Amino acid sequence: MIKQVLIGVLCGAAVLTAGILIGHFGITMSSAPSWVKDVAKDVDESLIEKFLSEVDNIQIQENLRSLTKVPHMATTAGDEQTVQLMLKRWQDPETGLDQAWREEFMVYLSFPDPKKPNKVTVVSPSDEVLYTAREKEKTYTSDQDDPEVVQPYAAYSPAGHPKGKLVYANQGKPSDYQLLNNTVDLRGTIAITRYGGAGRGAKAINAAPYGVIGVLVYTDPLDINDGLMSDINETYPHSWYMPPSGVERGSFNGQFGDMLTPYLAPKMVGCKLILTCFSIGHFSELGGKAAPAQWQGAFNCTYNFGGPGFQNPSAFNNSDVKLDIFNYEEKKNSSNVMGVIKGSVEPDRYVIYGNHRDSWVHGAIDPSSGTSVMLELTRVLGKMVKQGKWRPRRSIIFGSWGAEEFGLIGSAEYTEQYFTKLSERTVAYINVDIAVFANATLRASGMPSLQKIIFKAAKQVDAPGLDSTSVYDNWIQYSNRTSQANGLIPNVGYLSGAGIIDFCLMTMWSKTNARIYPAYHTAYDTFDYASKFIDPGFVSHQAIARTAGNVLIRLADSLLVPLNCSDYAETLEDYLNTAVTLYQHQLQERNISMEPLKRAVASFRSAATHLDQVIRSSDLANETPLTVRRINDQLMLLDRAFLDPLAFPDKYAYRHVIWASSSAGKPTFPGLADAFANAESQSSAWDKVHYHLSVLSQAIEGAAHTLGDVI
Amino acid sequence: MIKQVLIGVLCGAAVLTAGILIGHFGITMSSAPSWVKDVAKDVDESLIEKFLSEVDNIQIQENLRSLTKVPHMATTAGDEQTVQLMLKRWQDPETGLDQAWREEFMVYLSFPDPKKPNKVTVVSPSDEVLYTAREKEKTYTSDQDDPEVVQPYAAYSPAGHPKGKLVYANQGKPSDYQLLNNTVDLRGTIAITRYGGAGRGAKAINAAPYGVIGVLVYTDPLDINDGLMSDINETYPHSWYMPPSGVERGSFNGQFGDMLTPYLAPKMVGCKLILTCFSIGHFSELGGKAAPAQWQGAFNCTYNFGGPGFQNPSAFNNSDVKLDIFNYEEKKNSSNVMGVIKGSVEPDRYVIYGNHRDSWVHGAIDPSSGTSVMLELTRVLGKMVKQGKWRPRRSIIFGSWGAEEFGLIGSAEYTEQYFTKLSERTVAYINVDIAVFANATLRASGMPSLQKIIFKAAKQVDAPGLDSTSVYDNWIQYSNRTSQANGLIPNVGYLSGAGIIDFCLMTMWSKTNARIYPAYHTAYDTFDYASKFIDPGFVSHQAIARTAGNVLIRLADSLLVPLNCSDYAETLEDYLNTAVTLYQHQLQERNISMEPLKRAVASFRSAATHLDQVIRSSDLANETPLTVRRINDQLMLLDRAFLDPLAFPDKYAYRHVIWASSSAGKPTFPGLADAFANAESQSSAWDKVHYHLSVLSQAIEGAAHTLGDVI
Repeated sequence: MIKQVLIGVLCGAAVLTAGILIGHFGITMSSAPSWVKDVAKDVDESLIEKFLSEVDNIQIQENLRSLTKVPHMATTAGDEQTVQLMLKRWQDPETGLDQAWREEFMVYLSFPDPKKPNKVTVVSPSDEVLYTAREKEKTYTSDQDDPEVVQPYAAYSPAGHPKGKLVYANQGKPSDYQLLNNTVDLRGTIAITRYGGAGRGAKAINAAPYGVIGVLVYTDPLDINDGLMSDINETYPHSWYMPPSGVERGSFNGQFGDMLTPYLAPKMVGCKLILTCFSIGHFSELGGKAAPAQWQGAFNCTYNFGGPGFQNPSAFNNSDVKLDIFNYEEKKNSSNVMGVIKGSVEPDRYVIYGNHRDSWVHGAIDPSSGTSVMLELTRVLGKMVKQGKWRPRRSIIFGSWGAEEFGLIGSAEYTEQYFTKLSERTVAYINVDIAVFANATLRASGMPSLQKIIFKAAKQVDAPGLDSTSVYDNWIQYSNRTSQANGLIPNVGYLSGAGIIDFCLMTMWSKTNARIYPAYHTAYDTFDYASKFIDPGFVSHQAIARTAGNVLIRLADSLLVPLNCSDYAETLEDYLNTAVTLYQHQLQERNISMEPLKRAVASFRSAATHLDQVIRSSDLANETPLTVRRINDQLMLLDRAFLDPLAFPDKYAYRHVIWASSSAGKPTFPGLADAFANAESQSSAWDKVHYHLSVLSQAIEGAAHTLGDVI
Repeated sequence: MIKQVLIGVLCGAAVLTAGILIGHFGITMSSAPSWVKDVAKDVDESLIEKFLSEVDNIQIQENLRSLTKVPHMATTAGDEQTVQLMLKRWQDPETGLDQAWREEFMVYLSFPDPKKPNKVTVVSPSDEVLYTAREKEKTYTSDQDDPEVVQPYAAYSPAGHPKGKLVYANQGKPSDYQLLNNTVDLRGTIAITRYGGAGRGAKAINAAPYGVIGVLVYTDPLDINDGLMSDINETYPHSWYMPPSGVERGSFNGQFGDMLTPYLAPKMVGCKLILTCFSIGHFSELGGKAAPAQWQGAFNCTYNFGGPGFQNPSAFNNSDVKLDIFNYEEKKNSSNVMGVIKGSVEPDRYVIYGNHRDSWVHGAIDPSSGTSVMLELTRVLGKMVKQGKWRPRRSIIFGSWGAEEFGLIGSAEYTEQYFTKLSERTVAYINVDIAVFANATLRASGMPSLQKIIFKAAKQVDAPGLDSTSVYDNWIQYSNRTSQANGLIPNVGYLSGAGIIDFCLMTMWSKTNARIYPAYHTAYDTFDYASKFIDPGFVSHQAIARTAGNVLIRLADSLLVPLNCSDYAETLEDYLNTAVTLYQHQLQERNISMEPLKRAVASFRSAATHLDQVIRSSDLANETPLTVRRINDQLMLLDRAFLDPLAFPDKYAYRHVIWASSSAGKPTFPGLADAFANAESQSSAWDKVHYHLSVLSQAIEGAAHTLGDVI
């Protein structure tokens, strides 16, 4: 009996156990919905490793070869070929994205007339042409012979035929014209200016008030070629330096976005403009005495200052310079090519990755190095998606922008058109335009809250051509700063937008003084140039693809949005300290208090510390998905708090009170710095300083409120 | 044996069942996290019923009695008493909120000088005072004797002593002064204007260009008292009509918010201003002929037009009117009192409910009727929270704003200070200021997407004093319109903000022509007046508390945010149709196309239909909480898409391209209507019409994008 009872109990126990097991695993797993696990998933490190290993340098090289077969200036047939290429890749059933399409928009562009090329001549008083500048760049490879190579021109310069005495005006900064105007009557003159120091359009806008009727812009070999200028062996095709006949094209429209659309009526630059090549550099034949040292360039002569016009011993004595500009404007259809990978858990959160597609000529580096990298990223990620191995938590949007060279038009139109949804849903935008300047160190720019994720990614990527050195190691060696909280870290540059990162591998500081790679915007920016001088083997392109892709995956896939608010606080404190050092004394004298700004920065710091603490003490994987979303929204929207559409009424497209552009050139709050600089010369402007202090304090307090407990 | 086996099997079966049950309910419910159920919970209808039954009219009556014991003008001792009252109630351990606190801010206010009261006199050419207007209102109850009753004054009128000939200027509209100026030289005159037709400050701003040096403002018995004006038996305390000595106080600052803060420098009205009571109404003694019919009021005389000054037979012939204004400005501390109930599931989504707290005198109706209702709401909701019976899905924020009467200061400061977090997180704001004008029909204003939830709530509340008639039934009877999609529905008014609802029970249209209740802003707006003439028994207050509270609970607790985007589409279509009818012909003549606007409205309609379809076909309770949140965010943020900070550069505080204020008075897009009206008189202004069409089209397209699939 005891035995029977025992057996019965044991059987019962076994059956009960079976029952519990069935109950536990059989029935009730279905009562916990399947998405409970999905919503808590974090980024998969093994997937990142797989991504890194699959990014291929040869694929990038072949992308570049395809993209640069012909010139592809915005809205030309060559541009359309690149549109088709992007669509084909992104719609590929095996390696494409979920969806890809084109979006067309009408834009207002400016072109030279192929039948009547623009001209620069020197004409004698009797109208005899004494000298004609080159109309096109010299041919070294068949690329330059392509009939679609556009003549170097200043886009948006109005047509016209100004004629006048030539004067050298250095970089065309306001101070340059001011200095010149002290000794020369500039009315009716043609100014020749070199690239650098002032924006393209600014060189003409600054000149107009003095009565200058035309402006020539050239590239001085000092600024781009480390002084070298002979085409026998010093410059391309023998080196990466710009040949003497090279001309940097560019848009002289100072605004962003298309000039036809609501916020911007067509507005032309102040006087006629033309680009020219080196060979007009008869600077010592100009009248006057030697210009100041900072005005001197690398031509083997003294740059004279004064005139106007050529001096007596010169063959050009008494001659005028004449510009014949036949530019015309035209409304044309430009396209953005868009592609998406839809997010699995939070499709309404976007990580955007983009680059422009249009170039001035073949644009191998600008922008096709970036496009080649983007195509490799989408190939690797697209394949994982198509094979069902991966789908990011958040949606990824890829954008191939049109008509950037004419004034950031494609991307500006896109953001104007989708402003509300983008501003509510975008976690970050990654831009890779010029992916590689040279085989060297990383340059990354973006808001400070992104720096840690950039560092993390850069540590996981090998530096091209260096043994057991990461991109991070190489970067910190060449560009670093000391952070109070983080110690020695690589230097991340700032951009004038919110939530944006820009990547490129750029030249080592020690190698050159060029402000950019020498073939920039010339007919020499070709596949041949890129593969011989910029990145033989395309390993730097590969490193950029790996770094940017790593950041992209982390932004799209991390459970917690990888933005660090304490790093933001440190930058605000640095800015504040600079502002106090530079301005407090003079502000006190005018009874303008910096205390509200100091309190605001302190509030921000304490809110950031608090939120970091909340994050550290949370077990996010076991919180409700709405709790995770709340924290993520706090981090994502933090930067929006700094946008004030009324902060810079004179600066179209600038709304960010921390990162707006500034002409004062101080490492502090831009609106405050500019207002202070103005007030120093114009005492009625102190009210504006006060205004910017209030705007800043309110924005920073507002940002602190978004970081604080939500209620 | 068979029996034993059978018993064994049965026992085994029972044990197995027990095991399954334990496994199912015992162990594995813990593997489906408890929040899975919480995040899917919808509004509880039985809780709404409980709420409705607990709202008590006598509590509201006693709230009102406490709030109106003494005058409580902003920043006075009486105001501080109401601050303490609010805090005490909201911090009550049994019926209070989760948290309550005060927020102080410095404001710039304007007061009369109690030691030197403002004066209006008629003085002879020899400076003899022939007549002095009353300085205070006549006493009928002890309330008017309170020394804290502020003298009627025009806040923000600068101090001064203008003296000049009196002219009658009707309502002080631009057209009134223009007409008058045709026959009278207005330079150096004092204008007397009646309330209505133009904003308070506008009456002076409109006058200044004509050289008018002072403006008197009075209330004509025609406009507020249905013509009645005797204090023997026609007016308070015998009826709800304003006694002859009553004066409507008010702020003559035309802007919102505090004048000290960043966006607004102190800016005074164009000329001196003073308020006065009826008895100065010697209109027929003024010079000139009879004024036009629309200028005539209810005094038993002909209102003359011309002069300036009094006519010959009058005792005042040749006399001047003199204003002695001793107003002074002062910076003072004002307080908002804030209280919150923290949301259980989405604490980072806010439903805000508010009203101002300050009055001009006792403010029984304006604003204490609304405050009494708010206190009853928080008592009932607070009790449920404190007893652990309820916690809303979203957070509820209650605001008792300070210094509203001086220009919406408290609420404007609050939104300026917390702009980012409020704009990212707020579902809706409910305002109940004047809760009850009279025992009659509902007035509700808000964006069209909110109308269905207001209807739903109004159907669940009994109309006060009417058998088996709901507030909804009574409302639709007196104010209705026909909607294409919804048939005959009550008329919901529009407000110039996004996501705001304003409620009050107002007088029946048939009962009076008064533009507002007659004791508005006078010393007669007392508990005695409210309980005798506005809402004896406080049942109308109760009905408002029930209706507004019902809407509040639904906004805070519904799984799906109760905003209907198709109702928004219908309004846009109505606006478009009106715009096409009014403007298309003239726009076509100027080559300005309305097609982009038509396309935008059509996009919006189709996106709204699509989203409604998505909602209808979703089983929200079983979706992931992030899917529900995504749809809720689309609905919540829809209205933000219409905010364009650059749309109305001349109109401070207006950014909503659909609901901004408009002076054109057409039921269509305000910016377009105003721009069109300007362009008709000034042909250079057609560009602005084009601009507003672009702004509108872009905003509506942007709103459509937020409603479309997120990717």
